[in-house]
Amino acid sequence: MSDTRTNAGLDNISTYRKLTTWEEPGERAITIMTAGNLATTQSVVGLLDERTKAPDDRQPSLLAVPSMFQAARLVGDALREVISRQEDTGQNADSFGATIILGGQIVGGPPRLFLIYPEGNFIEAGDDTPFFQIGEIKYGRPILVRAYDPDLSFEDAMRLMLVSFDSTVKANLTVGAPFDFHVYEEGSLQTGRTGRLLGDDPYVHSVTQGWGDALKDALESLPPFGFSD
Amino acid sequence: MSDTRTNAGLDNISTYRKLTTWEEPGERAITIMTAGNLATTQSVVGLLDERTKAPDDRQPSLLAVPSMFQAARLVGDALREVISRQEDTGQNADSFGATIILGGQIVGGPPRLFLIYPEGNFIEAGDDTPFFQIGEIKYGRPILVRAYDPDLSFEDAMRLMLVSFDSTVKANLTVGAPFDFHVYEEGSLQTGRTGRLLGDDPYVHSVTQGWGDALKDALESLPPFGFSD
Repeated sequence: MSDTRTNAGLDNISTYRKLTTWEEPGERAITIMTAGNLATTQSVVGLLDERTKAPDDRQPSLLAVPSMFQAARLVGDALREVISRQEDTGQNADSFGATIILGGQIVGGPPRLFLIYPEGNFIEAGDDTPFFQIGEIKYGRPILVRAYDPDLSFEDAMRLMLVSFDSTVKANLTVGAPFDFHVYEEGSLQTGRTGRLLGDDPYVHSVTQGWGDALKDALESLPPFGFSD
Repeated sequence: MSDTRTNAGLDNISTYRKLTTWEEPGERAITIMTAGNLATTQSVVGLLDERTKAPDDRQPSLLAVPSMFQAARLVGDALREVISRQEDTGQNADSFGATIILGGQIVGGPPRLFLIYPEGNFIEAGDDTPFFQIGEIKYGRPILVRAYDPDLSFEDAMRLMLVSFDSTVKANLTVGAPFDFHVYEEGSLQTGRTGRLLGDDPYVHSVTQGWGDALKDALESLPPFGFSD
């Protein structure tokens, strides 16, 4: 799940899609989510997408790589390349940084999830670290750390992510609805359920409203503090 | 309330007191909490404390200033002075930054609460922004934003702060127990209840353990998500 808020300064806030999917049904389904400099991430996604449409290009495309590991290398290389084009002009590379989450499955391999750094290297999710966050991660992290469970249903995971995003939205202007999502089912090898939840969606609204009260009740349920004197 | 964790690199973690109180019973009670570079904050507190013990010094002390506003200026000046001594040596001032929360009451005025920046300037809490956080603030902020209520009892406020700290502790190594606290009662003009809650304190433990379950229950209490297809 991804939010859609981008900002270039507090007085320049817009909505952009940060979640992109590619598929070749029966063979592969790949999703990318991006955080960071919008010019960088749009360039990367544009570059990757262009290559999928020019299969004779010498550069491999996401629709041609044989494994998710190779897909992660491809995306990492594209990210580093876009950022280094800015560096070459002598500009401060930090401002052009971006981070990418890449997930998906290619026939013959398991579904895999990667976090790709601006330097182009990457790490993979595993049993111990089963999820990734990028961008403004801190506000929404405590509820994920506490409530994430590998046995969550897709529906419960959606609810958990909305609550996590809501914690961030309430505290930080740089994150905001609508939220794009893609639910990939292992082995399906095609794009699964995708959609966009608007800020005024009745369900989002009920979660946002209900969560404040639920948190207060949760707090009330804890044993009361007593001063020792 | 303040944690006590300090770190100079991940392999150099120690416990230091970051909450200091001064009082002159019947006349004033003042509390400072610090975040940031430990050398800077210890210098500032040392400087302020030394002045209270040398009343004939030309510099005013926290025990001599006539108002909390003057106290904030005094602390801000001390903070800026300590930081600028590092700058004078040509070192990068950012590394020596610190932020301070100053609260208290001086006879003849109301209790006031200030957030003091490394530059020595400051802002005051008010009805719209009734609390301040400094240091690693993001993880613990959502629960404060949601559950803070000006009508909270001191006991309930203690519980809320422990839960907020717990969210941070679970996610970030740079914050940790024990937690120091000072509860000042308006008009008392003397140090109120102070103490230190250890990480293995039975109450802290019950909050830490109970909060995970309470959060999961809170999540369960929200309406279930359903895919629209």
